[in-house]
Amino acid sequence: MMKTFDINADAGESFGRWKLGDDAELFKYVTTVNVACGYHAGDPSTMRETLCRARDSGLAIGAHPGFPDLLGFGRRALPVTQSDAVDYILYQVGALHGIAASENIRLSHVKPHGSLYAEVARNPGLAVEVSIQLQRLQSGLPILISPGASALALKEAGLPVVHENAVDLDFDDQGQNIIERTPSQKDPDAVAAQALLMANGQARTVSGTVIPMPVQSMCIHGDRPNAVEIARVVRQALEKSEIIVRSVFETGS
Amino acid sequence: MMKTFDINADAGESFGRWKLGDDAELFKYVTTVNVACGYHAGDPSTMRETLCRARDSGLAIGAHPGFPDLLGFGRRALPVTQSDAVDYILYQVGALHGIAASENIRLSHVKPHGSLYAEVARNPGLAVEVSIQLQRLQSGLPILISPGASALALKEAGLPVVHENAVDLDFDDQGQNIIERTPSQKDPDAVAAQALLMANGQARTVSGTVIPMPVQSMCIHGDRPNAVEIARVVRQALEKSEIIVRSVFETGS
Amino acid sequence: MMKTFDINADAGESFGRWKLGDDAELFKYVTTVNVACGYHAGDPSTMRETLCRARDSGLAIGAHPGFPDLLGFGRRALPVTQSDAVDYILYQVGALHGIAASENIRLSHVKPHGSLYAEVARNPGLAVEVSIQLQRLQSGLPILISPGASALALKEAGLPVVHENAVDLDFDDQGQNIIERTPSQKDPDAVAAQALLMANGQARTVSGTVIPMPVQSMCIHGDRPNAVEIARVVRQALEKSEIIVRSVFETGS
Amino acid sequence: MMKTFDINADAGESFGRWKLGDDAELFKYVTTVNVACGYHAGDPSTMRETLCRARDSGLAIGAHPGFPDLLGFGRRALPVTQSDAVDYILYQVGALHGIAASENIRLSHVKPHGSLYAEVARNPGLAVEVSIQLQRLQSGLPILISPGASALALKEAGLPVVHENAVDLDFDDQGQNIIERTPSQKDPDAVAAQALLMANGQARTVSGTVIPMPVQSMCIHGDRPNAVEIARVVRQALEKSEIIVRSVFETGS
Repeated sequence: MMKTFDINADAGESFGRWKLGDDAELFKYVTTVNVACGYHAGDPSTMRETLCRARDSGLAIGAHPGFPDLLGFGRRALPVTQSDAVDYILYQVGALHGIAASENIRLSHVKPHGSLYAEVARNPGLAVEVSIQLQRLQSGLPILISPGASALALKEAGLPVVHENAVDLDFDDQGQNIIERTPSQKDPDAVAAQALLMANGQARTVSGTVIPMPVQSMCIHGDRPNAVEIARVVRQALEKSEIIVRSVFETGS
Repeated sequence: MMKTFDINADAGESFGRWKLGDDAELFKYVTTVNVACGYHAGDPSTMRETLCRARDSGLAIGAHPGFPDLLGFGRRALPVTQSDAVDYILYQVGALHGIAASENIRLSHVKPHGSLYAEVARNPGLAVEVSIQLQRLQSGLPILISPGASALALKEAGLPVVHENAVDLDFDDQGQNIIERTPSQKDPDAVAAQALLMANGQARTVSGTVIPMPVQSMCIHGDRPNAVEIARVVRQALEKSEIIVRSVFETGS
Repeated sequence: MMKTFDINADAGESFGRWKLGDDAELFKYVTTVNVACGYHAGDPSTMRETLCRARDSGLAIGAHPGFPDLLGFGRRALPVTQSDAVDYILYQVGALHGIAASENIRLSHVKPHGSLYAEVARNPGLAVEVSIQLQRLQSGLPILISPGASALALKEAGLPVVHENAVDLDFDDQGQNIIERTPSQKDPDAVAAQALLMANGQARTVSGTVIPMPVQSMCIHGDRPNAVEIARVVRQALEKSEIIVRSVFETGS
Repeated sequence: MMKTFDINADAGESFGRWKLGDDAELFKYVTTVNVACGYHAGDPSTMRETLCRARDSGLAIGAHPGFPDLLGFGRRALPVTQSDAVDYILYQVGALHGIAASENIRLSHVKPHGSLYAEVARNPGLAVEVSIQLQRLQSGLPILISPGASALALKEAGLPVVHENAVDLDFDDQGQNIIERTPSQKDPDAVAAQALLMANGQARTVSGTVIPMPVQSMCIHGDRPNAVEIARVVRQALEKSEIIVRSVFETGS
């Protein structure tokens, strides 16, 4: 049996007059997209355009809710109550679900963005509450998140979860991503090397150590200046190693 | 057979620290509420609280999408393209639908707010496109709007529409509401007199003329200073006249 | 020589359709106001109205910049870089200064709001940088802040600073305010007792201990439900004790 | 005596994570910039960076206030009251003035943006009221606007005004610009031909007619995809024709 692996990328992160990322090119190489929902980026028209482009590209399509902070692009850790965080996520997933439904597109997953991702990943109570509520909106809708306390809690609660991690960020020896405020150029070959490890359940840390990284999907940040080239090189490297690049989710159409 | 009539009111129009309207009191007298969805008023936590309070009060619960203009409370006519207007509505209805679903609450209708209401009411192409898309989110979901070009177009297209009009605004002789920028006190007895006319398919204009007003629901503006008293007096007047005050929609739970 | 003391209050914290606080009543009892500048509350028209009302009431008028978080009313600690914090403050003070200038009103001071207040109070580098830049906008413009690290650093750098503290919040034994997310009713007489202590350079903590509190102004939160009554009772108590209630700053006109 | 002419461009129209225009390159060719102030584009940090870059490039630096509509980039005609429009302008000019002052930079003018520009240009009462109020913030501060009713009213009232028009937009035979929702590529040589006419007080309309165009400055839109190339070619063409390209205003430092 052939090994398969998923490449996910954030998408639809433009806002009104401002464009970010080259979704049309990126969608040639990734298999799953996380669509911004208006709080950190994205607006209703951008959301619809992104949904349709992703559907036409045959991708799996998830929601990418963030903190309500356009100015900080959702990368600042706004201290909110757990109930506020749940409400922000349901609002945004619902909004994308509404536009998706109007195009007969079905969401495949929910992946929080930026600092809200970090909060969901480390707060099992929040992750479980969000997931329970999401099941009432769409039964079976999984959260896409890094391995850790929340992923474990979701699994133990019998709630749907898929593991991922960023292939284009550095890891410390505890397997934590080292976040950049604004993504910069990365060497595509270095990322591709990490991608091959990750497709085999491993990752190399900044100290050179190889650690277990049990994920089913790897993320490439769409707002990195050379995101398209990275995605292309990573995909080629995976396919050369006879790994079938395919979404871990069902596609949107 | 007893005559029935519906009283609808806008609700959930607080925003963060700012409170507006006395929903808890108002919900004792109205039968249908239109819940703000975050663009002109409302925020995710207010939306959830309003949804739950309305459900617990046994009311029918609809979405109340507006223009993206918190500062102007959605009462300024932002000139947007038709596709932007459609996208703004689907985004907001979807957002409320998402939070409602997480509470096992079913939406009963969609009523646009303020200047977006005026735009939907007079632009049949917009109304029909919105309705077609809403059917894909929730089959049978009606638009609540004043009689006129768009209401007619929806009906002719076989799309669900319910007629309403504001009982607490003045009408000109063409049956058009005369909009106030900020609602002020109104004499409850005068509104009640208009309500009795409206429950019989009529309305009195500012010139004193009585015109046909074929509506199934009458709206009281929840942000009017004495909205609660108006609602109480109107409801009493209707019930005294042996009109059963009951929602034209199914309730949310 | 008579003892004098200043009562300051936040003002202009309405936003568009939403009203907060009863500035007209409050202005009868306080001597200094801090005017919201649009980031946590306030909008250009509210700012102008508040400036004119404060000027007509003979009050000293300062700027009250906050974090860019209308939804959280500036009470959430947004983690921002020091340079972002400086820029946010200059932007907002400049905006108020612009409208004030158009009314020939002169600003008397700058007091940050909510979580930005806490940040300025504890980060001397930020406080000094803000003050240096404010001097270039208006020479001599002081920061109004609680005693502590930043107040000391400003003084040592020869920069203008005036000490204040909240008379309507509890103190812990370290002299730190215990912040409420949303201010609730307070017993006016209890606040008045604290006010008399404060006018004498002292304050009582939650444990009952009396600690030194070397301030020249005391703050009453205008968004507390009974803020007007508290201000009235505090002012009467001070005047009964032959303390002249007078702004520590020059008035705006 | 040599003829001189001014080229102005909008600048600082990035917002947070989103970049727009290539200010660093554009500033090599233009002589005056209009800096976005946060309502349609721009944020406090972008404003400071833009002010400093413009000062270091020896340019004249004005404020570029717009409607409060980030999503629409200030290009949608929000129907506001005259007093709201005045307040929005004073707020934004004040904000930029505050940050500029902190860098010891002096503003040279105010040019409204997008739909607010159109409103100021055609409403003499608004233009005069804005100008009167601006004089109280900074005596002598001119409005930069197209020739027409408001420009005339300002002149007749003895208020400072400088005439400009867009060299990269088409004109109808009445001398009105034909606005694009989103600027697209333009042929630099065609714009340069128009620039030479404009430097001589004329302009060619879409019908080919040459009409009088008595302006002292011409505008190039910085968010046009090939804005930098247009600016370079226009500047070369003017200099080749022995026109000294120099700001009509004093520079910021």
